[in-house]
Amino acid sequence: MQIKQFIEINQQRYLDELFGLIRIPSISSEEKHKPDMVRTAEYWIQLLLKAGTDKAELMPTTGNPVVYGEKIIDPALPTVLVYGHYDVMPVDPLELWDSPPFEPEIRDGKIYARGADDDKGQCFIHAKAFEYLVQSGTLPCNVKFMIEGEEEVGSPALTVWCAENKEMLKADVILVSDTVMIGQDTPSITCGLRGIAYFEVEVTGANRDLHSGLFGGAVANPINILAQMIASLHDEKGRVTVKGFYDDINILSETERAELNQAPFDLDRYKQSLGIEQIHGEDGYTTPERTGIRPTLDVCGIWGGYTGEGSKTVIPSKAYAKISMRLVPNQDHEKIAQLFTEHFLSIAPDCVKVKVTNLHGGQAYVSPTGSAAYQAAAQALETTFGKCPVPVYSGGSIPIIATFEKVLGIKTILMGFGLDSDAIHSPNENFPLTNLFKGIESVVHFYERFLSIPDFQDSRS
Amino acid sequence: MQIKQFIEINQQRYLDELFGLIRIPSISSEEKHKPDMVRTAEYWIQLLLKAGTDKAELMPTTGNPVVYGEKIIDPALPTVLVYGHYDVMPVDPLELWDSPPFEPEIRDGKIYARGADDDKGQCFIHAKAFEYLVQSGTLPCNVKFMIEGEEEVGSPALTVWCAENKEMLKADVILVSDTVMIGQDTPSITCGLRGIAYFEVEVTGANRDLHSGLFGGAVANPINILAQMIASLHDEKGRVTVKGFYDDINILSETERAELNQAPFDLDRYKQSLGIEQIHGEDGYTTPERTGIRPTLDVCGIWGGYTGEGSKTVIPSKAYAKISMRLVPNQDHEKIAQLFTEHFLSIAPDCVKVKVTNLHGGQAYVSPTGSAAYQAAAQALETTFGKCPVPVYSGGSIPIIATFEKVLGIKTILMGFGLDSDAIHSPNENFPLTNLFKGIESVVHFYERFLSIPDFQDSRS
Repeated sequence: MQIKQFIEINQQRYLDELFGLIRIPSISSEEKHKPDMVRTAEYWIQLLLKAGTDKAELMPTTGNPVVYGEKIIDPALPTVLVYGHYDVMPVDPLELWDSPPFEPEIRDGKIYARGADDDKGQCFIHAKAFEYLVQSGTLPCNVKFMIEGEEEVGSPALTVWCAENKEMLKADVILVSDTVMIGQDTPSITCGLRGIAYFEVEVTGANRDLHSGLFGGAVANPINILAQMIASLHDEKGRVTVKGFYDDINILSETERAELNQAPFDLDRYKQSLGIEQIHGEDGYTTPERTGIRPTLDVCGIWGGYTGEGSKTVIPSKAYAKISMRLVPNQDHEKIAQLFTEHFLSIAPDCVKVKVTNLHGGQAYVSPTGSAAYQAAAQALETTFGKCPVPVYSGGSIPIIATFEKVLGIKTILMGFGLDSDAIHSPNENFPLTNLFKGIESVVHFYERFLSIPDFQDSRS
Repeated sequence: MQIKQFIEINQQRYLDELFGLIRIPSISSEEKHKPDMVRTAEYWIQLLLKAGTDKAELMPTTGNPVVYGEKIIDPALPTVLVYGHYDVMPVDPLELWDSPPFEPEIRDGKIYARGADDDKGQCFIHAKAFEYLVQSGTLPCNVKFMIEGEEEVGSPALTVWCAENKEMLKADVILVSDTVMIGQDTPSITCGLRGIAYFEVEVTGANRDLHSGLFGGAVANPINILAQMIASLHDEKGRVTVKGFYDDINILSETERAELNQAPFDLDRYKQSLGIEQIHGEDGYTTPERTGIRPTLDVCGIWGGYTGEGSKTVIPSKAYAKISMRLVPNQDHEKIAQLFTEHFLSIAPDCVKVKVTNLHGGQAYVSPTGSAAYQAAAQALETTFGKCPVPVYSGGSIPIIATFEKVLGIKTILMGFGLDSDAIHSPNENFPLTNLFKGIESVVHFYERFLSIPDFQDSRS
């Protein structure tokens, strides 16, 4: 039976299985969900065994366990290592969801739920493509699965776990679906990922909350000071002012920039879909450049003082912000962390105390478009979508991808099936059924092409 | 029986009655406490009737009811109108309280609870002084009580209510205890109060929360923009940059400033009590000037994006702040509200949408030190404390005081018994028992002196 027909017949079963996975609220950043992490990992073990792995097990790490499964048909054959994650983002603000985040619902041909795309839906694609290949007797190579539970908090335990299991994880390529396609009809392969450095900062004024009338004007207000410090982190051209921030960046040539700007991008549709009048960013760069090849600094959260209903006249003792920097290739996240910490402390006026905590970091990544695995992925997507995929530089970060190359020595192919409109990390995350099914089809084609690329053996060296 | 002895005998009863008042969580800014507002008002009615008023009743307004009570011994005699409020501030952050905010506890000679000082404790002083005068048969004049339930949210209903009840509220002076003394041994009378203009601002970027990687650097982050807008509200000299903000201020003469700076103020102790290394404010002014005669702008609350545990890589759709300005005499809060709104909208870049909501406002106030009522209050405090009270200009606002003069045509005497260390509006609000008892004593002396001031009759015109 062909893959298209197989998908047709199995649609309802696929959804039942995926919905069971989504229903477990595996939010890795919230301590209370610890038991849900294990439940989700165990659910994955059942999925893998059912799909046809020889074995699948829950492997402990210093954090949440990794799900590892494999099917070795012949040790002499090439091996694909599939990576994904079973953890998801928090769901607040809950009131903005149109349906409960952990009760998947299909509306207008899309699955609405936290994790529907990122990364339960996308990772599920690989289990089902593998299942078809096993059941149809067409699996051409060995397959390994490594599904972690801490991607959304920066994969703190995975590096060590990979190093400890380097032999077990041996493979020719790592295949990941955790990124987006340019559009529902336009496949793309992500060749670049930004790195990240993420901080929490705390500004302390007086030793207690103060009455804003009695003390206002005479004592530093940590919110006002924090606002000034944050404002000073960009100059009038939208450049980050942290000393040394841009020092190590590989500047792209005009030709490379021109190539990058050839990818289809409709600014009017972009603004319309976001409901904004004007875009905003660093002077002298296009929108795809700003998110693809330029580092940035964003405040992801801020809080302090009275935030309830009505008015309270208070000067709070403390104000906080979560500050995230997206990094580009050659910017080392550890060096940036040090530069940011030094800079932020150096701009603190002596009327406040400032604390900077580095919450997590990860390196940027680039994947060459010339590799055999890239070619196999490109042909697979062209077969499914009827169009040659576009190589894109994504603004997002999957910090562990750079680590894989460093620790395991294996390149990754980022074959994403999400859409920008999937609202990952936001209320009403969704994943179109079309993308789910075409994803399964594409991954099956990837395996079919994988061994037929003429220079494949060369690329293994 | 002398007042000192009377207090001695009645201490425990006083505390039982006051604690009953404090235990009702009458937070006026939180909708869920509506029933508590009525319960507190009814408790006050019982307190007043027990203290000896001819009548005491709950009078409806467009907001929370006003408690009104009176004892008219002779319509030809002068009348004192006591004003206070039965509502209190919110209690968050709750985790910083050492004992539950609505379960008063005495530690180290202080009552710890929300409202212990502001204004349940201070207003209670007047009920008990009046009670003594009635029971000892020494009440020399008529007394009226007006205790409202919306002071902490800007007394939105009281102006209209006063206008509607102008005849009933006729009096020679309004007496209020809702301010502080310079120190536990140094009595003071507040001659100046700052006005207030309080806003909530909302900055909207994209129409939904966005992934900070995929969109970071290309789309306006409302938190970063809000921080820039807030930072721009002060110049490098600490002056507020809102256009026209300082235009109407009465500039004090060098002599007046010198006089003001003669009030005892110990900068080292001030810094030490607040746990700060450096003070912070407008260039060219001392700390008492900064809080007493200069207008200021403070952010009382800020929020947006992810504020939970760990990290979430998000560019929020919206960011908010509560912004409060303290005004000085001759700055009209309605004009300032308009100036601020225009200014804040004018500095909004076109990559965001900005909304400004005026939550409340009130005029600044000055009371002349030469009036008969001021002299009576000064003599009363000198009798109790053995020291002539210092006239001070407070940074706080009791917006309704300016309204009383405008609507009722009556001047107010602010005879406060709180201390700066009482932590009003903060966790662990407290009120020393000494201040409670000396307050009662002082108010009794005020009534004793009130009619004996030679020029009293003149001052009634």
